[in-house]
Amino acid sequence: MKKSRFSPETYIQGILNGDRMLLSRAITLVESTLEEDQTLAGQVMEGILPFSGNSIRIGITGVPGVGKSTFIEKFGGLIVESNHKLAVLAVDPSSQQSHGSILGDKTRMESLAADKRAYIRPSPAGKALGGVSAKTREAMLLCEAAGFDVILIETVGVGQSETAVRGMVDFFLLLMLAGAGDELQGIKKGIIEMCDALVINKADGSNLEAAKLAMRDYANALHLFQAKESGWSPRVMTCSGLEGRGLAKIWNVVEEYRNVMQLNGFWQQNRQSQRIQWFDDHIRYLLESKFYQNPGVKLRLSEVLPGVQSGNLSPIKQAEELVQGFLNRAK
Amino acid sequence: MKKSRFSPETYIQGILNGDRMLLSRAITLVESTLEEDQTLAGQVMEGILPFSGNSIRIGITGVPGVGKSTFIEKFGGLIVESNHKLAVLAVDPSSQQSHGSILGDKTRMESLAADKRAYIRPSPAGKALGGVSAKTREAMLLCEAAGFDVILIETVGVGQSETAVRGMVDFFLLLMLAGAGDELQGIKKGIIEMCDALVINKADGSNLEAAKLAMRDYANALHLFQAKESGWSPRVMTCSGLEGRGLAKIWNVVEEYRNVMQLNGFWQQNRQSQRIQWFDDHIRYLLESKFYQNPGVKLRLSEVLPGVQSGNLSPIKQAEELVQGFLNRAK
Repeated sequence: MKKSRFSPETYIQGILNGDRMLLSRAITLVESTLEEDQTLAGQVMEGILPFSGNSIRIGITGVPGVGKSTFIEKFGGLIVESNHKLAVLAVDPSSQQSHGSILGDKTRMESLAADKRAYIRPSPAGKALGGVSAKTREAMLLCEAAGFDVILIETVGVGQSETAVRGMVDFFLLLMLAGAGDELQGIKKGIIEMCDALVINKADGSNLEAAKLAMRDYANALHLFQAKESGWSPRVMTCSGLEGRGLAKIWNVVEEYRNVMQLNGFWQQNRQSQRIQWFDDHIRYLLESKFYQNPGVKLRLSEVLPGVQSGNLSPIKQAEELVQGFLNRAK
Repeated sequence: MKKSRFSPETYIQGILNGDRMLLSRAITLVESTLEEDQTLAGQVMEGILPFSGNSIRIGITGVPGVGKSTFIEKFGGLIVESNHKLAVLAVDPSSQQSHGSILGDKTRMESLAADKRAYIRPSPAGKALGGVSAKTREAMLLCEAAGFDVILIETVGVGQSETAVRGMVDFFLLLMLAGAGDELQGIKKGIIEMCDALVINKADGSNLEAAKLAMRDYANALHLFQAKESGWSPRVMTCSGLEGRGLAKIWNVVEEYRNVMQLNGFWQQNRQSQRIQWFDDHIRYLLESKFYQNPGVKLRLSEVLPGVQSGNLSPIKQAEELVQGFLNRAK
């Protein structure tokens, strides 16, 4: 971080007061890989943790072209009109390779970005998936502590990020298109199985009939899947992000889900297992980052990599020696 | 391992002499999680490594019902008839949950299992994917050192195991069905992008025309994908595992692939990056297994897990303390 750091208390108080500048600075801090920043970020997270958790966390996925930005713009507008404070975050592990951050500039959600009741945070770029999703989870808690009571987490629908996002949200919404010939659109069955609602977007104009047909097909297909642990039957709906139609119904379904799940206890149970998952993920992340940032490891790696690559050195034996050496050197 | 262990030299010499009993025992050793076994396995791997690598490594995937067992039985038969020694291995992370090992009993490949030129090894059950794929890679090298010059690695086509297998083979073959209505059959686009050959199986009887149509559709679809780093255009073919038709053509394509890739250097380059991947995977595996097997970590974990689960303790802070404590205690 080039900017000066504040004290943990400054961040914590600022966030609890809903100060957006300090919220953004805290998220940047959490995303930083510098060791001092990480320590400070840990203190801030520790301080805000008791004030987090009071939101509906919604994951939204769908392949590029499905109309996610327009959907989130309109759906988000409806959410803030219903007296909620909304934060939109993104997990996009592919951004470093090709497309740039999916929320890269906020111009794709102009009116939502201009709305004082909404907060849009682009995805951290250039990191590995594990790191990105860990940071997104922390950003989510920071937003909750700042008073945002609905969190939308957007992901790209083509990779492993769905599993990561499913592991941090209460409700998972899959956006699909109708009549694209191939009904699965490159979305793998596993992602469909994860969703709590499957929404056919672009149900407008000449596409309306096709969308209704697709809705019926998916509703039939979803019946064949195993019942969810939550007891919830995934809903299949249509909407038009462009025309803003069908969005209120989707929001009703989200609220219904929350009410039912809070009553039957699944809501709490799901959050508990997500905390354990988060704990495990963070342990894995720490073990790896401490290993690869260790100066002795770095030096030794540069010495053995050519031999491992050419096949002259055994990857197993070299890995053993490196890990053992790292553990021996650890203070 | 209940059975007594041999010396590293006994395993190594036995494997180099093509002794199947010692090969099987060595694979069991590699799969064992006992620390003594792991040490011994490391010595064996170190000894056979210079004698590994001389095979064509082929990954085969496809959803359940695509006819993989029958295909491998017949395709394997053809390979051994062409004077090759064939080993068939499996990666099946789902086996612990539902289906049992996909090669669980060898009765599904009776004639191949009875053939002295072939070696079939069921998938190790009840392990995490990372562990399973690491073990499969080592089993592959052991088979190569024992003189098997074609390795088929079977995987189930529904999860993450494809990526793991793609990362250890030279050639990746995807089996598909025609006329199942939905052309993608739950196989995600990412898996199709990985394949070097896409083969429509069950091109027989009344299904023949549908298979030819599907072949044309897939051939068109594959043109839309990005060119591969290897410069290879994935082939689309039909075959009948049941009737044994189209298999020779597939084998010719595999051999053509090897010839072209060895000439243009991609074969060697791919194996080099796979070694680095293997090295990284093994480091990650060691860090995690040493952490979770540490007695101090186990004790502390049992103390803090309830608090982490309920949300009273911060997952981040507890993870930090556990990892730091582990590194401090490491001898």
